[in-house]
Amino acid sequence: MIVDCHGHYTTAPPAHRAFREAQLAGLDPEPAAISDDEIRESVEGNQLRLQRERGVDLTIFSPQASAMEHHVPDEAIAVAWARACNDLVSRVVALFPDEFAAVCQLPQTPGGGLGASVAELRRCVEELGFVGCNLNPDPSGGHWTSKPLTDEFWFPLYEAMVELDVPAMIHVSASCNPNFHALGAHYINADTTAFMQLVEGDLFDRFPTLRFVIPHGGGAVPYHWGRYRGLADRLGRPPLDGHVMRNVFFDTCVYHQPGIDLLARVIDVDNILFASELLGAVRGVDPETGHHWDDTKRYVDALPLSDDDRRKVFELNARRVYPRLDARLASVTGPGPGTEV
Amino acid sequence: MIVDCHGHYTTAPPAHRAFREAQLAGLDPEPAAISDDEIRESVEGNQLRLQRERGVDLTIFSPQASAMEHHVPDEAIAVAWARACNDLVSRVVALFPDEFAAVCQLPQTPGGGLGASVAELRRCVEELGFVGCNLNPDPSGGHWTSKPLTDEFWFPLYEAMVELDVPAMIHVSASCNPNFHALGAHYINADTTAFMQLVEGDLFDRFPTLRFVIPHGGGAVPYHWGRYRGLADRLGRPPLDGHVMRNVFFDTCVYHQPGIDLLARVIDVDNILFASELLGAVRGVDPETGHHWDDTKRYVDALPLSDDDRRKVFELNARRVYPRLDARLASVTGPGPGTEV
Repeated sequence: MIVDCHGHYTTAPPAHRAFREAQLAGLDPEPAAISDDEIRESVEGNQLRLQRERGVDLTIFSPQASAMEHHVPDEAIAVAWARACNDLVSRVVALFPDEFAAVCQLPQTPGGGLGASVAELRRCVEELGFVGCNLNPDPSGGHWTSKPLTDEFWFPLYEAMVELDVPAMIHVSASCNPNFHALGAHYINADTTAFMQLVEGDLFDRFPTLRFVIPHGGGAVPYHWGRYRGLADRLGRPPLDGHVMRNVFFDTCVYHQPGIDLLARVIDVDNILFASELLGAVRGVDPETGHHWDDTKRYVDALPLSDDDRRKVFELNARRVYPRLDARLASVTGPGPGTEV
Repeated sequence: MIVDCHGHYTTAPPAHRAFREAQLAGLDPEPAAISDDEIRESVEGNQLRLQRERGVDLTIFSPQASAMEHHVPDEAIAVAWARACNDLVSRVVALFPDEFAAVCQLPQTPGGGLGASVAELRRCVEELGFVGCNLNPDPSGGHWTSKPLTDEFWFPLYEAMVELDVPAMIHVSASCNPNFHALGAHYINADTTAFMQLVEGDLFDRFPTLRFVIPHGGGAVPYHWGRYRGLADRLGRPPLDGHVMRNVFFDTCVYHQPGIDLLARVIDVDNILFASELLGAVRGVDPETGHHWDDTKRYVDALPLSDDDRRKVFELNARRVYPRLDARLASVTGPGPGTEV
């Protein structure tokens, strides 16, 4: 089977966005009343259509990343918004249980604590069957006022993730800094930044089973793999393969063949998870190829991988990194690769 | 001949750093008295030795990037520091005129104007024979409080660059933000950020002959070339090849063969300038290859380029982007490719 580990609900019904706007206007609204038919319609012609056309069996699905808007400082607003977004994603999964698994948005705020995020993670995983979370390393939205991911500030969340055995995808949200285009700079910079923080720190000594997926092909990291290997050496850090790469995974959201070729050339196949970020940053057709830029399955199909390695990228790595997905699938498709990292 | 477009004077004599420290301590010191012998010694055993060993004829040399420290807000301090740094680089070039050309540090400050930077650029180019400048898009040092490079704030500097016919390398300095490791995140993020700002704007309509070199292989850009092509399309921007890439060039400071292979595969050979950033971020030997990570000439040598294309990367593109270098070399080695962009 083929699992896409990175999809966002970017086509949620407009009433959901209207709720958000009422919330930001200080109206203290109730989440939008959205029917099952509206939800079906919002995915069947969009996410699900493309997913089926491209031969993807299941997408690990989360609320729209740019709309998480963690820069809004009011925690009560963040909690209500995250709950509404997560509940909607949960309903998508309930309607299409064979084609989606859910990952949650956390109610982070700039400068705020993590108590509400831990509570929402628990609610989503324990009550709603979610298999992971998206963690924003910069809730300020491009001002980077938070602590690095290796700081003990984040430990309460990591403790819950370890206990629940769920990974986080490191994913920022909208940019409030005019220097950073969200999709063209902020997202990619955050991926690169997070990786380097992990190189500098010893987070996985403290949390040996903590797992992060760094999206968008790991930001700039694979292209600069020699730089990171060299910096690790110069800084007296352990070699990447025996350190960070035991707990960190890159997705395949890189929108051209040469990029995917590089990723597969330098990163161990055990650390690569298939993904396309549908319907995401880069919609439309590449005039040079005649195919959608984000049809990343074509690029992975074109890699010279053995059948075993290809199955790792398309399925088994995702089941290993998201053991709660594996457990769900095991009852249908037989055992996966186990949950060890 | 082989021109390395990106070297920093990271081995300046200790008295120069002592001057800086006295300056930061508020002592209003005079620049250090450094003898020609001290300067010779500081480069002959370091930069120049490696340059000669690796077969590089000439390096476009500038003050140490991380020590520019534009985050110090006092303009008088910034001016005195930039002058001292540039004067020292000028003396290196005077001592080794066949092996170095100079690029200047600008006295930028966070929130400050550009008058002092324009004046220092003019002094360096008109009086000292410099061939370009380093431009810091984030003088705050990782807080990104300045305007995007496409904002009219920067126009006075661009007007001077155009008049003097010198390019800028986009290069940040030290990071004051604990989220960003300078060499492992801030540098690469700045490259990516600057490129995306240029995609969003129309700067080169206004300044058709303005030229920027984006170092470190263009940050994350070549690895995500499909993303940038797709974003340009989605944002209604012109295709990259006929827009940004008429005025923007990437260097080859990418420290492994797969990265250089990718760069050459996706970026037009006319837009690639050889560089290694000696003695820079990543010193030491890659145990997998037995060679220095930053010996980028090996990677470029291994590219399947025609002789004409190889000469572009090693020499002709640099002479085209830095016409004042070309003019200097033309009197020695014959005419280069002209100064048109």
